[in-house]
Amino acid sequence: MVIDSGEWFSEVCEEGGSAFSLKLGSKVHEEQSPYQRIAIYETARFGHLMTIDGFVMLTGRDNFIYHEMMAHPALFTHPDPRRVVIIGGGDCGTLREVLRHPGVEHVTQVDIDERVTRLAEKYFPELCESNDDPRAELLFADGIQWVKDAPAGSIDVIMVDSTDPIGPAEGLFREPFYRDCLRVLTERGVVVQQSESPLYHTEAIILPLHRRVREAGFAASVALHFPQCSYPSGWWTATLSARSGDPRAFREADARDRGFETRYYNADIHRGALAQPEFLRRRLESL
Amino acid sequence: MVIDSGEWFSEVCEEGGSAFSLKLGSKVHEEQSPYQRIAIYETARFGHLMTIDGFVMLTGRDNFIYHEMMAHPALFTHPDPRRVVIIGGGDCGTLREVLRHPGVEHVTQVDIDERVTRLAEKYFPELCESNDDPRAELLFADGIQWVKDAPAGSIDVIMVDSTDPIGPAEGLFREPFYRDCLRVLTERGVVVQQSESPLYHTEAIILPLHRRVREAGFAASVALHFPQCSYPSGWWTATLSARSGDPRAFREADARDRGFETRYYNADIHRGALAQPEFLRRRLESL
Repeated sequence: MVIDSGEWFSEVCEEGGSAFSLKLGSKVHEEQSPYQRIAIYETARFGHLMTIDGFVMLTGRDNFIYHEMMAHPALFTHPDPRRVVIIGGGDCGTLREVLRHPGVEHVTQVDIDERVTRLAEKYFPELCESNDDPRAELLFADGIQWVKDAPAGSIDVIMVDSTDPIGPAEGLFREPFYRDCLRVLTERGVVVQQSESPLYHTEAIILPLHRRVREAGFAASVALHFPQCSYPSGWWTATLSARSGDPRAFREADARDRGFETRYYNADIHRGALAQPEFLRRRLESL
Repeated sequence: MVIDSGEWFSEVCEEGGSAFSLKLGSKVHEEQSPYQRIAIYETARFGHLMTIDGFVMLTGRDNFIYHEMMAHPALFTHPDPRRVVIIGGGDCGTLREVLRHPGVEHVTQVDIDERVTRLAEKYFPELCESNDDPRAELLFADGIQWVKDAPAGSIDVIMVDSTDPIGPAEGLFREPFYRDCLRVLTERGVVVQQSESPLYHTEAIILPLHRRVREAGFAASVALHFPQCSYPSGWWTATLSARSGDPRAFREADARDRGFETRYYNADIHRGALAQPEFLRRRLESL
């Protein structure tokens, strides 16, 4: 049995038949918010760990990969991103990366649970260092409703930085949400959405997501691949969908001369993340 | 505590402060060979699992990524690979991939432990399906000594498909071995070697390996990245070193028209695997 004792935190992935564990110092905080159970641990080698309802949300050690890959590929795909919305993303790590782009004029972060952000401010202060940027707007509300209410053609990039497609985030993986996204986006608008593991979730999540965004009217979608040690299987995707044009094309020269520091992302990594493993390439082509 | 009971197999990675666990059916075999303790489990979702001295060697579910990435990038980097040697690789999965290349005339697999191969034949028969190919030669001997004894300029591609750099495999990560490799290789020869995780082993293993192959006289070396769920952190590298020329250049058209099936590898994946994460790019450049 894999157990969550004082010494280790373990997350079991039922559909994977696997578990990932982090050696702990101690649990430093736990609370039941109006939406979910949030816990913070001090780990032996991964810095702080935040879990929601027993699932790893982020660790201090490897969140840089996830946050950079949620933010930069989408922003360098859009020709001139000025208005961005982040649905979820309450830890503010994606927000920080978005704000590195000087052309971005306004970012709205809409997370349903203010407690995630308050705990991130305390335990992941480095991710929240740009929260006071005048271009940043932090809302604590239902992201699905926010997109439904937003004016048509008002947003350049939508980032869906949510929990897994069970519970509150379920509606973020359904076609009505993508139709609302399409309406809200500008002509060359893109959506990027965290979309789980190619090894575990290709049939149940990744392919249905691509099918739904295309049925909702997006011109095309592509999977972006990156390692994410603390998520099931260690291999993760974001799905990048374009309202028009080809989501595989990006401002490569701008990505090379980006003028800000990254730890994972660069133009070669962006190009490489677009490469589809043969088994997934075949399945995506048959959609 | 992470425990190895009847229900789960767990491998703790001390240097990572993490553990990976697989849900089991049952342990189906265990033995002490002259070299190491080998166990075979039936898992719930990963097919068979082979461990050596408590470390995951391979699973039925994800070994295709590792074996394809050990074999195909190196073979499509060399202009005309005919003679190949695999050091280690006793499960025969890399051998099977190498034999898919019709230009390859002879492959010698040198694993010190015959029991690994005998157990692979029984529990991973799909990996051993090419063992009777007349081009394949299976030796059970010390790979370091084999390379030392091999004639100069006799091998096009050396694949070091070993266990971690502790115990019997330690000498495979030392400079004298790379000097022997260099001597044995033909003019455009390459070495590919499994080289652990960028998240956990950059300073302790990956960078020293690049430093040593270059000090041994190789013209250049590059890290190839790929996901490997059942190895620590889920993110793995192979190090590709070229006796002459640029190991980032490869026969891309041949890789596209390769004429055999793969599940992970293709030309885009090859190109993508050469992309260096920003943190590693900076460290490799400063070598």
